[in-house]
Amino acid sequence: MGQSIGRWIRGAALLPVALTAGVLAYAQEDDVATRLAALEETVNGSASAYVDNSYLFLIGGIIVMFMAAGFCMLEAGLVRSKNAAMQSTKNVLLYAVAGLMFWVVGYNMAYPGTTILNGLLGVTPGPWSGGDLSVMSEAGYAPASDWFFQMVFVATAASIVSGTVAERVKIWPFLIFTAILTAVIYPIVVSWEWGGGYLDTVWSFSDFAGSTLVHSVGGWAALVGAIIIGPRTGKYIGNVVHPMPGSNIPLAALGTFILWFGWFGFNGASQLAAGTVADINSVAQIFANTNMAAVGGTLFAMVTTAVLYKGKVDATMVFNGALAGLVSITAEPLTPTMGQAVLIGGVGGVLAVLTVPLLDKFKIDDVVGAIPVHLVCGIWGTLIVAATNDGATYLGQAVGVGLTGVFVVLASTVVWLALKFTIGVRCSLEAEEMGLDKAEIGLEAYPEFSRG
Amino acid sequence: MGQSIGRWIRGAALLPVALTAGVLAYAQEDDVATRLAALEETVNGSASAYVDNSYLFLIGGIIVMFMAAGFCMLEAGLVRSKNAAMQSTKNVLLYAVAGLMFWVVGYNMAYPGTTILNGLLGVTPGPWSGGDLSVMSEAGYAPASDWFFQMVFVATAASIVSGTVAERVKIWPFLIFTAILTAVIYPIVVSWEWGGGYLDTVWSFSDFAGSTLVHSVGGWAALVGAIIIGPRTGKYIGNVVHPMPGSNIPLAALGTFILWFGWFGFNGASQLAAGTVADINSVAQIFANTNMAAVGGTLFAMVTTAVLYKGKVDATMVFNGALAGLVSITAEPLTPTMGQAVLIGGVGGVLAVLTVPLLDKFKIDDVVGAIPVHLVCGIWGTLIVAATNDGATYLGQAVGVGLTGVFVVLASTVVWLALKFTIGVRCSLEAEEMGLDKAEIGLEAYPEFSRG
Amino acid sequence: MGQSIGRWIRGAALLPVALTAGVLAYAQEDDVATRLAALEETVNGSASAYVDNSYLFLIGGIIVMFMAAGFCMLEAGLVRSKNAAMQSTKNVLLYAVAGLMFWVVGYNMAYPGTTILNGLLGVTPGPWSGGDLSVMSEAGYAPASDWFFQMVFVATAASIVSGTVAERVKIWPFLIFTAILTAVIYPIVVSWEWGGGYLDTVWSFSDFAGSTLVHSVGGWAALVGAIIIGPRTGKYIGNVVHPMPGSNIPLAALGTFILWFGWFGFNGASQLAAGTVADINSVAQIFANTNMAAVGGTLFAMVTTAVLYKGKVDATMVFNGALAGLVSITAEPLTPTMGQAVLIGGVGGVLAVLTVPLLDKFKIDDVVGAIPVHLVCGIWGTLIVAATNDGATYLGQAVGVGLTGVFVVLASTVVWLALKFTIGVRCSLEAEEMGLDKAEIGLEAYPEFSRG
Repeated sequence: MGQSIGRWIRGAALLPVALTAGVLAYAQEDDVATRLAALEETVNGSASAYVDNSYLFLIGGIIVMFMAAGFCMLEAGLVRSKNAAMQSTKNVLLYAVAGLMFWVVGYNMAYPGTTILNGLLGVTPGPWSGGDLSVMSEAGYAPASDWFFQMVFVATAASIVSGTVAERVKIWPFLIFTAILTAVIYPIVVSWEWGGGYLDTVWSFSDFAGSTLVHSVGGWAALVGAIIIGPRTGKYIGNVVHPMPGSNIPLAALGTFILWFGWFGFNGASQLAAGTVADINSVAQIFANTNMAAVGGTLFAMVTTAVLYKGKVDATMVFNGALAGLVSITAEPLTPTMGQAVLIGGVGGVLAVLTVPLLDKFKIDDVVGAIPVHLVCGIWGTLIVAATNDGATYLGQAVGVGLTGVFVVLASTVVWLALKFTIGVRCSLEAEEMGLDKAEIGLEAYPEFSRG
Repeated sequence: MGQSIGRWIRGAALLPVALTAGVLAYAQEDDVATRLAALEETVNGSASAYVDNSYLFLIGGIIVMFMAAGFCMLEAGLVRSKNAAMQSTKNVLLYAVAGLMFWVVGYNMAYPGTTILNGLLGVTPGPWSGGDLSVMSEAGYAPASDWFFQMVFVATAASIVSGTVAERVKIWPFLIFTAILTAVIYPIVVSWEWGGGYLDTVWSFSDFAGSTLVHSVGGWAALVGAIIIGPRTGKYIGNVVHPMPGSNIPLAALGTFILWFGWFGFNGASQLAAGTVADINSVAQIFANTNMAAVGGTLFAMVTTAVLYKGKVDATMVFNGALAGLVSITAEPLTPTMGQAVLIGGVGGVLAVLTVPLLDKFKIDDVVGAIPVHLVCGIWGTLIVAATNDGATYLGQAVGVGLTGVFVVLASTVVWLALKFTIGVRCSLEAEEMGLDKAEIGLEAYPEFSRG
Repeated sequence: MGQSIGRWIRGAALLPVALTAGVLAYAQEDDVATRLAALEETVNGSASAYVDNSYLFLIGGIIVMFMAAGFCMLEAGLVRSKNAAMQSTKNVLLYAVAGLMFWVVGYNMAYPGTTILNGLLGVTPGPWSGGDLSVMSEAGYAPASDWFFQMVFVATAASIVSGTVAERVKIWPFLIFTAILTAVIYPIVVSWEWGGGYLDTVWSFSDFAGSTLVHSVGGWAALVGAIIIGPRTGKYIGNVVHPMPGSNIPLAALGTFILWFGWFGFNGASQLAAGTVADINSVAQIFANTNMAAVGGTLFAMVTTAVLYKGKVDATMVFNGALAGLVSITAEPLTPTMGQAVLIGGVGGVLAVLTVPLLDKFKIDDVVGAIPVHLVCGIWGTLIVAATNDGATYLGQAVGVGLTGVFVVLASTVVWLALKFTIGVRCSLEAEEMGLDKAEIGLEAYPEFSRG
């Protein structure tokens, strides 16, 4: 036992070491725990990804907002000078109307908590509100950044209609149509897909940034409007098409560039997140693909017009070719390779060029070519998603395209006809001849330039 | 004691465990401490929030910089074609002059270390410098990003004056006035509030992004200029007002859109930080409110003009309505609800429309309507802050508005009169009739278009 | 010994403490280790800097993309109205061609893995591809964000040529030249420096954002083109220079502002990273310096023209002065102080103004002044790098300028001449008189405005 004690004592001789180790560890541990807790708070409370995501919506959003200026310039450039002030004013007004209506009912109808009619119709609780600004949204981004981004999309749909029905529509019925389109028609279609509704759940319909939801919605509404309102006086006499050339091609070029610029926000920010490596890689790829599709649309349209018109390169066809490429890639800007993006956009460019004479054949007067670009290419872009995105099927895509078309055509017809038979949609022949600038706006676009 | 020893020995039998635990803990602890230190360095050295804040200034800054293009287009579109090249050139030059002067003395006078005259006048140490680029600024953002953001604001104030005094001011006195405005007048006002001076400390004056500090400063300087320089020849004959319509309405629409676009940077980045959840939530809310105020301004102005002018929608009133809404929300884009933002902007739009005939009554010739938009709505927006922001009072807001007005009117009067009685501020009657393009710039804006 | 035992026993009385400390430490340690590991995963997997870097490329990239619109407006404004639609269309087309060619071969030739001819010529494996989107690139940013940013630079070089050879070049040969410039000529020069090749390794040549690599490459190609294509008919008759004034000065002003705006992306994002304090501080400083150089260019050009032209401020000289300042600072926007930036830009502005009559003396017809701005100031800006950047020498800079000049002149001469002797580069005299809008584009820019 003495030995035993001695052994223990020798063992115990290590006690100070153990004590030192243990106590030091405890003390240091205490320090470590404190520091770790502090660090955890810093890291876990970090807004880094939250800010990155919100920035995507905010920066993308203002760039898409600027597309309103692009549509305005494109349309002001492609109408005759006697209607250019009206067209400019209409574009400012429609952006304002769209923003108001999407706040009042649209957003909450597009992304509804409650639905009726088997989920086909969202029930909106009224105006959207951003909630408590001090709270981190579980969605992972600032709530108002999302609202803002969604709002500029609805304005795009409204801008599409404006160009087609230019030079003969009266301003008040146009604004009323815009209000209904942005408050109800567009939000209902969006609720079916981005709102997680019927097309999304039943058909796995895929429309990344809105070839169908934004562009074809605008395109269908424009088509119905063009038919109901009728062509500009003098455009079609018998079977002869009388071109009515745009008054300011450089402005149309500017509009094209602004839209191309804005499309990086339109498609890129539709990734909806940018806070992870995978997300920002995707945003970047979307930028590259979006550009390549526009490149394809531009160049294919150029070649097509050169073939059709003996070597001449039609300026407006080139501009619309770029936009056609952009619309075509919008349904799926992520999964195609860059070569596929060129082809998808390129086919869109060809389709846009070929659709123009087709519309003329049916005497459908589309002043800026919005139907070829936004409707035809919107359909093409949506269908071809199935070629590169395994999650989509041609059938599902066709159902989405078709259902959207049927609904928007019906709804637009009702609204345009209701307007036609109440306050009227078309200006008088005198107003059309004088120009809508004088008739509706009270001033001329270029009072010192225009001939007679 | 034997028992006691035995008990201790039994206790000591756990010693190896303690040793193992302690020593292992120590070793692992050592590893943990190292890893923790490394992690702390990574996290605490993380530039995430710093970068987010700086991005806010840089991206906001370039967007506000682009507002210079917006003012340029708005003004070039609203003057007659014989003065459009002059107006365009003046806008490029004033942006350059503002940038130079704000670097040379302005910034350090606006945000002074030392003040005299009971804190009313900052003492500037001369040109601003960014300092050591490798060092993290304690302010939490890159120093030069702040300078850049502040600089584009002063350019905005200068742009406001340019539109009002168009079509008859000579270029050199205008540039000298701009230099003094941006070097001294604007910085002094800013020092009272954003520089932490008299209005901020004594009156809790609140002006988030500059309804008073930027817009009314520009507006007062413009008002004094318009009075001293006098109206354009032929504008007022007896009591009859002769309209002189703008020469290029689509450009004015483009300018309006660019300004609307830029305002997201103007108001949004005035949050001054974006690295936390609360900050980015606020930035997003500011975007939404800013848009809603412009929506309100646009639509209320539209309705007002339609009522006044028998159903016609005056294009320039719509554009100015949008801008009026934007100026009105600038003093407080964060605390209003979105509905309140619509109203605040809407009232601004109505005020802008109603002020135009008032100015004409006093024969104050404001070519682009800058006084109604920037001065009247700047005052309105500043006063109404007290309705939604608990930190502000109507009295304090009124004091800020009044003090700014008195100072800028006095200072501008001195400078405009000094210029008038030395080099002269107004062009000759011949130059005015010929147009300032030929008289001052040596080329015409549209040599192939203009009549006669 | 009893005492000794007693001492040990007293010492051992602390054993429970040690045990508690050690075991607790171990347990807590276990928790700490787990938490630390989790935190490490969070922090090290954080995409914060990666996202910040990618954002720099993406946002910078779209802003530089928008410079294409700036060139388009500048050039459309400075040509006569009969060529303005052609000029607008050409600018859309060249941006598309540049994007296609830089994808097909350009990027991988500019940043080659393998080179031949002693490293002077990169071997391209063909089209660029973004790779696996889920993987974090070791470069520290999204791969496609880099491709996008590089692509918009090549478009800038192509835009420069477009302005110089305006009003008489045929569209197809121009587009073929653009294709070769952007596929081969520009990428080869870039490989020598940014691709880490000869100029970078042997001469420590320094060209931060491309005064030489982008602007002088475009400038040399434009110079050769102007000489081979010859001046516009009627521009030089004997020794008399007949000015052919631009048709739309406000558009040229808009183009200037858009380019100034875009240059913040051009220079700022050339920092290539923004995820650290030092990087974002530098980006911010580059913004400030870029602006000050443009300020210097604008104001020095204004004063120079006022002195030369008896107090008149030539509008186009002011616009080109701004651009001259921007080109001049592009080779080194980081190391100069802000005062030095004013001077560097200012000298550029003076050089641009003085070069215009020099070109006229040699009957080199540069429609928009691209050679003075992009070539002369590109050289000036590159040489003066050695004054503020210790890593550069005047000799090394001169070698880079010279080698680039020799190569681009030779290559451009071969291509322009090959085009001249095959499909021809210059339109017919009839086409030139009628205007290229009708001759090549099939529609007029302003069908309702232009005189006779």
